[in-house]
Amino acid sequence: MPMRVSRLDAPTPALLVDLDRLESNIAKMQAAVSRAGKQLRPHAKAHKCAEIARRQVEAGAAGVCAATITEMELMHSAGFSVLLTTPVASPLKTDRVAALARAGADVRVVVDHPDQVHLYQDSAVRAGVKLDVLVDLDIGDHRTGIPCDERAIQLARRVASSANLRLAGTQAYSVSGSHTEGWDARRIHSTTAIAQAIAVQKRLLDLGLDAHTLTGGSTGTWNIDTAIPEITEMQAGSYALMDVAYRRIGGADFAPAMTVLATVISCSHADRVTVDAGFKAFATDRPFGPEPLDLNGARWEWAGDEHGVLHLENVSRPVRLGDRVEFLAPHCDPTVNLYDRIYAARGEYLEAVWPLKRLSLAG
Amino acid sequence: MPMRVSRLDAPTPALLVDLDRLESNIAKMQAAVSRAGKQLRPHAKAHKCAEIARRQVEAGAAGVCAATITEMELMHSAGFSVLLTTPVASPLKTDRVAALARAGADVRVVVDHPDQVHLYQDSAVRAGVKLDVLVDLDIGDHRTGIPCDERAIQLARRVASSANLRLAGTQAYSVSGSHTEGWDARRIHSTTAIAQAIAVQKRLLDLGLDAHTLTGGSTGTWNIDTAIPEITEMQAGSYALMDVAYRRIGGADFAPAMTVLATVISCSHADRVTVDAGFKAFATDRPFGPEPLDLNGARWEWAGDEHGVLHLENVSRPVRLGDRVEFLAPHCDPTVNLYDRIYAARGEYLEAVWPLKRLSLAG
Repeated sequence: MPMRVSRLDAPTPALLVDLDRLESNIAKMQAAVSRAGKQLRPHAKAHKCAEIARRQVEAGAAGVCAATITEMELMHSAGFSVLLTTPVASPLKTDRVAALARAGADVRVVVDHPDQVHLYQDSAVRAGVKLDVLVDLDIGDHRTGIPCDERAIQLARRVASSANLRLAGTQAYSVSGSHTEGWDARRIHSTTAIAQAIAVQKRLLDLGLDAHTLTGGSTGTWNIDTAIPEITEMQAGSYALMDVAYRRIGGADFAPAMTVLATVISCSHADRVTVDAGFKAFATDRPFGPEPLDLNGARWEWAGDEHGVLHLENVSRPVRLGDRVEFLAPHCDPTVNLYDRIYAARGEYLEAVWPLKRLSLAG
Repeated sequence: MPMRVSRLDAPTPALLVDLDRLESNIAKMQAAVSRAGKQLRPHAKAHKCAEIARRQVEAGAAGVCAATITEMELMHSAGFSVLLTTPVASPLKTDRVAALARAGADVRVVVDHPDQVHLYQDSAVRAGVKLDVLVDLDIGDHRTGIPCDERAIQLARRVASSANLRLAGTQAYSVSGSHTEGWDARRIHSTTAIAQAIAVQKRLLDLGLDAHTLTGGSTGTWNIDTAIPEITEMQAGSYALMDVAYRRIGGADFAPAMTVLATVISCSHADRVTVDAGFKAFATDRPFGPEPLDLNGARWEWAGDEHGVLHLENVSRPVRLGDRVEFLAPHCDPTVNLYDRIYAARGEYLEAVWPLKRLSLAG
């Protein structure tokens, strides 16, 4: 029997993934999306990990999404079809996409501005390829996407009439809809938002354009999107790992598979201890902190780059110097982004260490 | 003449350092600390970059500080004396410190609990070395450090009486003192806090213990600490790069040398544009956002992992698709932590690309 290493022996702060929960989350989402007759294309920006993407594709996903060119390059090198969900605005970046296509990659991209159509067309010409391009629609957040009016139709026409581009459909993602608290409110918000995209899709189809594909959606709306016939492809990402944010809005549908393991490194006071995890171990973009697991009576306080304080009041177990404490992260995507490896555990023991290339930056 | 690359051509989001400003910040701090007859040991957790540490040591610094063992190992491998300013509580970590000492490194560590003394003593015995240990004092923040009473004295005695440890002084850092707004308020807060450490230092010296070294301080208190005779070593780190946080509290003493470069990737609306920098490009632990440089009339809004929105109102220059915008980061340390390289620029052109090993994590 091989020597086994406890999950608690990972050097802290450590990013842990519980394999049983991960696999169960992947299977559950895939089953629901397949049952609805749609494709699942999970967003790899959530985990940036080829090993997790591989499990998603083996379970039936059509490929993955990426938010940056670097993520796209990595996911292609791991063997997956990739949709870049973010518009770019630099010929150096559109050239990188075209180079992937030239290398045989199944890549697709989005545009929300006529200049981006020209950039991709020019890069495609230089590389001698034809690129699949979707029109990114603004369905209310005013973050990216072209408004769902005549401008979207004109942009789609422009793609369709570019010699080296193929119109491949539309993309619509509602940031606000995905994060609305409460399932009913979320359903109303997100279906109202997506209705604008469906209207554009219908106009494009009426014009004889190839706009069958409508890609979007999220973990927050996973069991809302499945009921919308016009959506053909779902992009949920966080469901695989989960975080406090999605659990708070009423989405306890998936298991908390990702945790951060920390060590108690200071305990000079009876009412508090300090752990070795702070701003560099957890993304802090949510208005709430990490949640300690299996430890009632402990309240988190941010205490610096490398420190967090746990205020203790009638705690459910003693907390001593050197003890490990495991936390659910406020927001999974930018927390994964802080680590260079995942410690993958099955039950109490580590089963693998997965490298995380620094993907999101240098775009 | 070699081909020159504009700083604006770094792939975005990119971490830029202005070399003229960096060098001027390093020289200014070193001159002030040397003039005060103290040692400067800049905190490398702020930049995690061997190239910046090298410039600090060449300017006269005694070595660097590190917040994690991994940072300590990297800074030692680059040739510098390193003080680990954070207590640890695992034999795997104390063994790594002892291994460095065995390899000839000039390393020192801190303790704030008797169990840590035992851990270091045991590791030192296993490695056959003697370790320099300082007592980390809690001067009011209750984050790490032992309270400045009899417990600190007993802990110092325990270090001094451990066969393989050498008492090397005390450490005192006031988080709250460093970040108090307004120089006068900051001076009162931090000098009151440090007075407790000075009292401990005096008692230890009276007992005949080697407690001459008192290390601490920060960018926020740099010209306060220099006037306190008992402080022998200053640990400021952020001064080299700077951020919005330290400028806001009234510390415009150092130049903003570090910026994040982003690209406008969406501009579907007259009153706003979207850039390719969000939670993964800036640490979000401060209650304010990045500040765009050379662009008046633009107000930042967080818009996701890879996106930020600039609301535009009477902007000082047009902002178009593909334009680059440069930002001062809210907080330098955890922002550097998001990148894997620094683009070092002299004026308008890039001069070097410095690798940043992922240092802070896996402790």
